[in-house]
Amino acid sequence: MVKFQCDYAEGCHPNILERLAETNFMQTVGYGEDEICESARARIRKAIGREDADIHFLVGGTQANLTVIASILRPHQGVISANTGHINVHETGAIEATGHKVIALPSSDGTITGDQVREYVKAHWNDDAHEHIVQPGMVYISFPTENGTLYSKAQLEDLYKACQEFDLPLFIDGARLGYGLMSPANDLTIQDVTNLCDVYYIGGTKVGALFGEAVVITAPSLKKDFRYLIKQKGGMLAKGRLLGIQFDELFKDDLYFKISQHAITQAMRIKKACEDCNIPFAYESFTNQQFLILTNEQAAALDEKFVVSHFEKYKDTQLIRLCTSWATKEENVDELIEVLKSL
Amino acid sequence: MVKFQCDYAEGCHPNILERLAETNFMQTVGYGEDEICESARARIRKAIGREDADIHFLVGGTQANLTVIASILRPHQGVISANTGHINVHETGAIEATGHKVIALPSSDGTITGDQVREYVKAHWNDDAHEHIVQPGMVYISFPTENGTLYSKAQLEDLYKACQEFDLPLFIDGARLGYGLMSPANDLTIQDVTNLCDVYYIGGTKVGALFGEAVVITAPSLKKDFRYLIKQKGGMLAKGRLLGIQFDELFKDDLYFKISQHAITQAMRIKKACEDCNIPFAYESFTNQQFLILTNEQAAALDEKFVVSHFEKYKDTQLIRLCTSWATKEENVDELIEVLKSL
Amino acid sequence: MVKFQCDYAEGCHPNILERLAETNFMQTVGYGEDEICESARARIRKAIGREDADIHFLVGGTQANLTVIASILRPHQGVISANTGHINVHETGAIEATGHKVIALPSSDGTITGDQVREYVKAHWNDDAHEHIVQPGMVYISFPTENGTLYSKAQLEDLYKACQEFDLPLFIDGARLGYGLMSPANDLTIQDVTNLCDVYYIGGTKVGALFGEAVVITAPSLKKDFRYLIKQKGGMLAKGRLLGIQFDELFKDDLYFKISQHAITQAMRIKKACEDCNIPFAYESFTNQQFLILTNEQAAALDEKFVVSHFEKYKDTQLIRLCTSWATKEENVDELIEVLKSL
Amino acid sequence: MVKFQCDYAEGCHPNILERLAETNFMQTVGYGEDEICESARARIRKAIGREDADIHFLVGGTQANLTVIASILRPHQGVISANTGHINVHETGAIEATGHKVIALPSSDGTITGDQVREYVKAHWNDDAHEHIVQPGMVYISFPTENGTLYSKAQLEDLYKACQEFDLPLFIDGARLGYGLMSPANDLTIQDVTNLCDVYYIGGTKVGALFGEAVVITAPSLKKDFRYLIKQKGGMLAKGRLLGIQFDELFKDDLYFKISQHAITQAMRIKKACEDCNIPFAYESFTNQQFLILTNEQAAALDEKFVVSHFEKYKDTQLIRLCTSWATKEENVDELIEVLKSL
Repeated sequence: MVKFQCDYAEGCHPNILERLAETNFMQTVGYGEDEICESARARIRKAIGREDADIHFLVGGTQANLTVIASILRPHQGVISANTGHINVHETGAIEATGHKVIALPSSDGTITGDQVREYVKAHWNDDAHEHIVQPGMVYISFPTENGTLYSKAQLEDLYKACQEFDLPLFIDGARLGYGLMSPANDLTIQDVTNLCDVYYIGGTKVGALFGEAVVITAPSLKKDFRYLIKQKGGMLAKGRLLGIQFDELFKDDLYFKISQHAITQAMRIKKACEDCNIPFAYESFTNQQFLILTNEQAAALDEKFVVSHFEKYKDTQLIRLCTSWATKEENVDELIEVLKSL
Repeated sequence: MVKFQCDYAEGCHPNILERLAETNFMQTVGYGEDEICESARARIRKAIGREDADIHFLVGGTQANLTVIASILRPHQGVISANTGHINVHETGAIEATGHKVIALPSSDGTITGDQVREYVKAHWNDDAHEHIVQPGMVYISFPTENGTLYSKAQLEDLYKACQEFDLPLFIDGARLGYGLMSPANDLTIQDVTNLCDVYYIGGTKVGALFGEAVVITAPSLKKDFRYLIKQKGGMLAKGRLLGIQFDELFKDDLYFKISQHAITQAMRIKKACEDCNIPFAYESFTNQQFLILTNEQAAALDEKFVVSHFEKYKDTQLIRLCTSWATKEENVDELIEVLKSL
Repeated sequence: MVKFQCDYAEGCHPNILERLAETNFMQTVGYGEDEICESARARIRKAIGREDADIHFLVGGTQANLTVIASILRPHQGVISANTGHINVHETGAIEATGHKVIALPSSDGTITGDQVREYVKAHWNDDAHEHIVQPGMVYISFPTENGTLYSKAQLEDLYKACQEFDLPLFIDGARLGYGLMSPANDLTIQDVTNLCDVYYIGGTKVGALFGEAVVITAPSLKKDFRYLIKQKGGMLAKGRLLGIQFDELFKDDLYFKISQHAITQAMRIKKACEDCNIPFAYESFTNQQFLILTNEQAAALDEKFVVSHFEKYKDTQLIRLCTSWATKEENVDELIEVLKSL
Repeated sequence: MVKFQCDYAEGCHPNILERLAETNFMQTVGYGEDEICESARARIRKAIGREDADIHFLVGGTQANLTVIASILRPHQGVISANTGHINVHETGAIEATGHKVIALPSSDGTITGDQVREYVKAHWNDDAHEHIVQPGMVYISFPTENGTLYSKAQLEDLYKACQEFDLPLFIDGARLGYGLMSPANDLTIQDVTNLCDVYYIGGTKVGALFGEAVVITAPSLKKDFRYLIKQKGGMLAKGRLLGIQFDELFKDDLYFKISQHAITQAMRIKKACEDCNIPFAYESFTNQQFLILTNEQAAALDEKFVVSHFEKYKDTQLIRLCTSWATKEENVDELIEVLKSL
């Protein structure tokens, strides 16, 4: 059965496999200091328009999140996140295991606002007992969010302004960055994202790579000794070139953006089909994840033909997630749409 | 100005000072293994009716909480608490600093129910992605709670039953235990408390001691190597007898209960005065903390005569906390009541 | 210039690349629960002769070490290791970052003995102040060691016996396991290794894989909830099948052992050449790493032709490491031997 | 039996008890922000000659060590210490529990030199693989050391210079500071100690207080948010004035120095007696701890009359520690000397 369950069901873009084969017996130095990693860094720096950025390749998203956050915070500080943020709900306490509280702000759609940050941080400093409370030390968001929603340029500008008002580094989890950037609802470029935060990562695992995330650090104060932390947290690959190869291919000829666009095109077809047949959404998403509310009967019918993610179960309905990706086949989406229409 | 701001404004019960003076040049071994500590342990074991209990004296509440919790949990586990729980809001991330998430359940009055625990834990195990989520590893409550509320015997029995259904140790923070036990609204004895959890502590700091909390461990599996953890977390006093002296005095001739009763009597006088003049409460408390909602004018008038705690500020009103303690003087309460009546 | 610097300079065995290509568009579930991972586990279980073993695929050595050790120890416990052990010297404090001391025992050749463990652990328990000292909670060794040395079957049996006498789990870091097993000086089978410890890992990164280590847990008490720890420590690959593919290929038709044998054959040729021209060794190694003592002139001459690792520098001499691997070309070794003979 | 076993067998200097009684019903604010703590801070600032110093009162030595060290280091950094340092051997891994390695340098007498630090730190930065090794982030010493030895002014100056050359904060554990300062072999004043490090603490527990250590931070960069860390690590006493009272008394009329002098006078009497009867020392100590090598018969004879500490046991001899303190009675020393002479 065809899977629309997640965006990591297949391997990688064929260009990467070719490059792996082509370079297989080449001898390189280890730990990400080889020439292929350097080439990948150069391509990314060019794409994001920042020659001064430090770029590190990490193995996965949880690891990138915990390494970046542990690197930034002092022991008494915590990281502000939407309560729905990946670090708050789906990383088995990876952040807490490095000693830090995730300070969860309420969010109905996966985003938090500059004003929420302002209000929380002011309240902290105004509290007579603030030394008894975890000090907010940085802000974490996802783009797109776990709910498939996006920050507009204006929203991100305001959030980053709020962070700067209180000297809080802003970190963007871009596990699905490509799918956010190519969304028809998006008004941010990758350069904007780069300039509107202090550190972020470009997700590879879900966007064409076998695995790997490219952490981009632009804030000078956050660059120091980052490689020590990668090593300590278990993220420094001996054959670091594996990550270099993947990002070198993804950032050659705009491949990253093209394959992201493919996923979005297919997702928008699904979205339109749902709208056409009045299937309601749990969240309005213009990215590669679509969150449908189906009756239990509809869900059962869908399950007969496709593998999908079952999130929340309500009384008579349930929340179903469908994902597209760089690897989604158009004909499979055709078939899915047929089924959706028949529900 | 007289302070009703907190329950730790004064020193300690005079019996303790006398005993300190009397034993001052006595030579004892260190680290809590002296004869006075042993005597204190024996008195506590008798009072709680459990000869098998392990008893350790720790310096303060945050330290007791973090040491007990770090001792129990495996790295991927978190501790369930009311969102208002002291460990969640007022310990500067002490629990997270030991690597563990505080899993905060919603609470309007400071308590959580057995069914909340059942529902949360079942949902964890039923989630296909449960390995991506912090595993609930124990439950923490306070008695009385930070809001001055209490668990009834039936409520605590049900909560403990829920914990046992899922093999979750139950830990009770008894920083104000005496004030809970002597409350007119309480139907639990200290023996009940002891038997309805796996580990708890008898608060000294707020109930007659200079400082110190007596951790009582009844669950055999939680006893092992606890002293190593006390030492590691900085809680093993070289002159451990200081803590022994205090608890030996507090548990001689029921002193702990008598001085707790005094605080409650004074608190109930304040409560009645508020009721008499229709001052509303934020939480209905039958313990030594009273949470009043005053208009800003009333609060300002009170501030002229007494030091009180200002908690939340609303539009025209604010939440004021008044505390009594073992040291509260009756004549000061007389005066306070006068002022409350005049507001 | 040809590199003999390390055993991770190339990509992977071609069979793995082929399998990656072949399975690329296959859709699987994530996080190591797919059918290819299951097949790899079955092959490994068969090879090691233990149907009851739990097998987990992790991304790298440091990560495997920190995840296994953090999973086993309670907070007040440390891990015994040779002072030369990888966890003690080359992992940027990864173990300490999880809260645990590495208890370093002296070692001149990279190994520790059962009697060293017995003596240390007895001394701990006999010390009146043992609660003030980190409690030994497990033992870590490497096979082969960082110095290229091996444990004989008798030595490992005695060490494991010592561990069992004190209820200390024994963990073997097998980053170079294949190169140890195929050594002419080795008398242990992979089944022996499996049965003479509680948990170990089969190194892939240095033995034919792109990356990845297979953690084998045989002790029932160490199996519980291990996947939570993998996730928390950032080691759970979304496309877990990548690791399954690699180990499935490595354990098909004894590939792992055959390619290890190749590396050893080449290393023994180098060793013999050194002996023939009286180049002294820093450690007597019968594995894929050779540790030569060269004069500064000899080292400079070697550097002109090959990339090698420069370890310690002494007054007139220095310690040079040469590594072979599954990928080492015979003709390159021919050339290396020529140069060694000419020094 | 009279105890010469340790320097924390008795209570506290009577002045402290008197002050406790005198202030017992005074109401103060909590957490060390009261007027008595302020008075104590002012007295200490005057004694050390640094109006700019931040002063915090902590409960005990292990807690002071772990709080200071955790406050200073970033996650990938460790603390350099003598291998005999208290943090390395007698704190149950308290430092590692905050995530940091203790980098132990060899020491035969408890001290480390500036050149040892220089050599270690240079080697770190010169190592190609330094990112794989814990980065030295600060230096910890004890004054006096655990062996009763001292740093001369020249030695401390050189050590501090070495630290400054590499931007490493220097932290001095002064658990027995008074006994070092009053030693006849000492050439450092308390002002010198203050100016030759970045942070240190003045030990109270072993020098006249019931408990408590005064942490003195002079380096501006180390002052920020230190109170958050005290709270998080469980060291913020609700009745903080207890610590203020003790240090206010100890620094009134040079009491701290006078009672330290008393302990030293008695220790030097014991030292001379040993010399007179040719009892050898394990370490040459001019402080309050004396380390004797006795035959097993001599030790047994001593044990009949006094409680002493038995450290190492050799074949026919053993290492015995005798301690004096502010509380040591002259007549007990008379008696001890009698017995020593009779051995």
